[in-house]
Amino acid sequence: MQRSWTRRAWLGAIGAGMALGTGLARADEARETALRIDPQRLRQTLEGLSVFGRPAGGDFSAGVSRYAYSDADLAGRAYAMGLIRAAGASPRIDAAGNIWARREGDTAGLKPIVIGSHIDSVPGGGNFDGALGSLAAIEVLRTLNAAHAPLRHPLEVVLWSNEEGGTIGSGLAAGILPPGPTLEATLNGIRRRDGLRRIGGDPDHVTDARLAKGAKAAYLELHIEQSGLLEKAGVQIGVVDGIVAIDEYDVEIVGVANHAGTTPMADRRNALLAAARLIEAIQEEVTRDPGRQVGTVGHLEVFPNARNVVPGRVKMSLELRDLDAVKITRIAERIAARARDIAAATGCSIAITPSDRDPPALTDPRLQRQVEAAASGLGLSTLHLPSGAGHDAASMSVICPMAMIFVPSVGGVSHSPRELTSWADCANGANVLLQAVLRVDEMDV
Amino acid sequence: MQRSWTRRAWLGAIGAGMALGTGLARADEARETALRIDPQRLRQTLEGLSVFGRPAGGDFSAGVSRYAYSDADLAGRAYAMGLIRAAGASPRIDAAGNIWARREGDTAGLKPIVIGSHIDSVPGGGNFDGALGSLAAIEVLRTLNAAHAPLRHPLEVVLWSNEEGGTIGSGLAAGILPPGPTLEATLNGIRRRDGLRRIGGDPDHVTDARLAKGAKAAYLELHIEQSGLLEKAGVQIGVVDGIVAIDEYDVEIVGVANHAGTTPMADRRNALLAAARLIEAIQEEVTRDPGRQVGTVGHLEVFPNARNVVPGRVKMSLELRDLDAVKITRIAERIAARARDIAAATGCSIAITPSDRDPPALTDPRLQRQVEAAASGLGLSTLHLPSGAGHDAASMSVICPMAMIFVPSVGGVSHSPRELTSWADCANGANVLLQAVLRVDEMDV
Repeated sequence: MQRSWTRRAWLGAIGAGMALGTGLARADEARETALRIDPQRLRQTLEGLSVFGRPAGGDFSAGVSRYAYSDADLAGRAYAMGLIRAAGASPRIDAAGNIWARREGDTAGLKPIVIGSHIDSVPGGGNFDGALGSLAAIEVLRTLNAAHAPLRHPLEVVLWSNEEGGTIGSGLAAGILPPGPTLEATLNGIRRRDGLRRIGGDPDHVTDARLAKGAKAAYLELHIEQSGLLEKAGVQIGVVDGIVAIDEYDVEIVGVANHAGTTPMADRRNALLAAARLIEAIQEEVTRDPGRQVGTVGHLEVFPNARNVVPGRVKMSLELRDLDAVKITRIAERIAARARDIAAATGCSIAITPSDRDPPALTDPRLQRQVEAAASGLGLSTLHLPSGAGHDAASMSVICPMAMIFVPSVGGVSHSPRELTSWADCANGANVLLQAVLRVDEMDV
Repeated sequence: MQRSWTRRAWLGAIGAGMALGTGLARADEARETALRIDPQRLRQTLEGLSVFGRPAGGDFSAGVSRYAYSDADLAGRAYAMGLIRAAGASPRIDAAGNIWARREGDTAGLKPIVIGSHIDSVPGGGNFDGALGSLAAIEVLRTLNAAHAPLRHPLEVVLWSNEEGGTIGSGLAAGILPPGPTLEATLNGIRRRDGLRRIGGDPDHVTDARLAKGAKAAYLELHIEQSGLLEKAGVQIGVVDGIVAIDEYDVEIVGVANHAGTTPMADRRNALLAAARLIEAIQEEVTRDPGRQVGTVGHLEVFPNARNVVPGRVKMSLELRDLDAVKITRIAERIAARARDIAAATGCSIAITPSDRDPPALTDPRLQRQVEAAASGLGLSTLHLPSGAGHDAASMSVICPMAMIFVPSVGGVSHSPRELTSWADCANGANVLLQAVLRVDEMDV
């Protein structure tokens, strides 16, 4: 590990300062620094961003609809770029619409440490998903600049475009989404190609945004947990083991639609009865093994869907998630076997077709340890857990070592105006992000 | 039993004539007459009616969309009224839009025997449901008139309006539908009040169509079975025991919508899992007892119905049918008990609310015996069975003794262009109707 003398002296001074305050610093290691983000400023910027996409007449608790490429998204991006300028950096929009800001390091030849998240939301979403990680990254940049704190590595802040539409900005940058079909798709009434141009991207040269494998030193993302594990355990910081694999399937069940009055029970080929049995079988097979895997039938349609007609056809979704891709493949095989039995018993056909497969994105163990150490240096409790939701960090995992920091979500509610993380937890997360950056900067990455 | 000499002499002559032909007549009883409908003419009129509501470019096998009050319904009614005139009678439209035709009897003071059905169809329906019973009734009238066959009772043919919309014409005539709300409802884009005026009814004086209890001697309706029982048993004529009671319920299941990736299986309150278990429980409770009762969940909606959200709410229908109303009430109570257990196990609430209740309409045992005797007099096999579907005959059961004659439906298919009854079975049904009329005419009704 290489350190400049200037840098060691600064860290030592900061460390000594913190030791006076909390007793936690060990000056000989000089990694537990006294540097802290400004919790009031972080709160103000979260509240400031929440204005864009807020329902008419609503307040902060009304949540936001700031979906990608919308007027609200544009306004939110402009607000965030203003914060970047206030932090002393110049925002740049890449061809994929991602907003970047850079702070130089003091050791030549080192790759940048990247921190960030996204500021777009789902329609009817909350004020923390993506927004916290984005504004905390800007706050970390501002804190470091204000303190003139020297870092060995360059530091980059990134606000990924269109995360909620399927990690589009980060996926294009990481080269894991094919630009052609990705840009032609339409969501919320806006074709991505047109939306991308609208936010300052360049759909005709989107590959200009591509990051080379190994182009960055590390990627760190702070995010709300979106689950109730941390809150339930009374733990302040989640150390993410990885982002789960998601296997999606389309299920189609075909029976025979018939008159509900004149068709004897024994003669029915009832597609909804078959669907009901399959839903129960999915529940059983997913929960048969210990672990945190989940399986969900979230979408279901019945045809013809009339009170007095025995259902002839059902379409439904199935998705399975776990950090272990082999495990969910094994569960899917057991579900397929159950489906064969159910089809035979009900006289229906059941087709289960894979429709999408996201591999797991594991976090880097060395980075995990820095997050843990950063949290414990701040006196914060930690818990290791997987991320059941997808994140831009999964895209970045193909470019460089990656880690994620989670803070508690009240009641585990997310993608909802009721999404909530306490201001104290927001500040804790941002401080862990800051401290983790300082620690990773010490690493040979 | 009173008979005129003229009538007895005619029946004797007919009976003797038939005896020469088939050996089935017993001249001393003189009820198995040689009188037969014209099967070719019946087929021609069924094919003639099938033109109205036929899809563009289709043939007879394409079925019809002749829903009530539509242009096709109007044209079909005009065609049927032409057939009534050709049969030697004058059609009359009552205030509820029902078409009546009357043939006088030769014994003063007797009430009319009524035969008929409906000629409207469901959208995308077939050529036999309602049409067969209607055109067979006109064919019976025409056959009797052509033979100058004397009947003691007046004979009335009725073509009920808007059967498929909920036995509206017969329900208004029988006084079991409240005119106000019934006429304000809209179906297939037409308000019933406007539709009724369109077909020559009088929505402002619809109670003029009301029949007094006991105003008719008997009601006989020929109909396709709409189920596969007769075909499967290889039986030609169904003797209907009654039209089943239908109890309908609205079911609402409320859990908690949540992120499908971040919500552990054990923490879910999954409304669709509860619905699946309830659908299986309904199947079990309906089939637990021997008998012909049926139970159906035909309609189901999931909220928010997104692949990646644990379903927070499900709305579904439940209907139970059987001749025995007490039996389906008992089954509903068992289903409610199962629902309470499922709600407790899944952390959801389940509300099951009665939404409609049609009592059973039992056919008259004496009329059933006349239908059976008419069939066996024609050498046709019979089977007793319930009607799982509703019919205008259910309305008429509150006015006078009622019976129904069923003929086989190929594959049990109905409310579909594929609805099919063989021409031989159509003719058999019409001949049983004719012979049953002659037999009922002998009764003291």
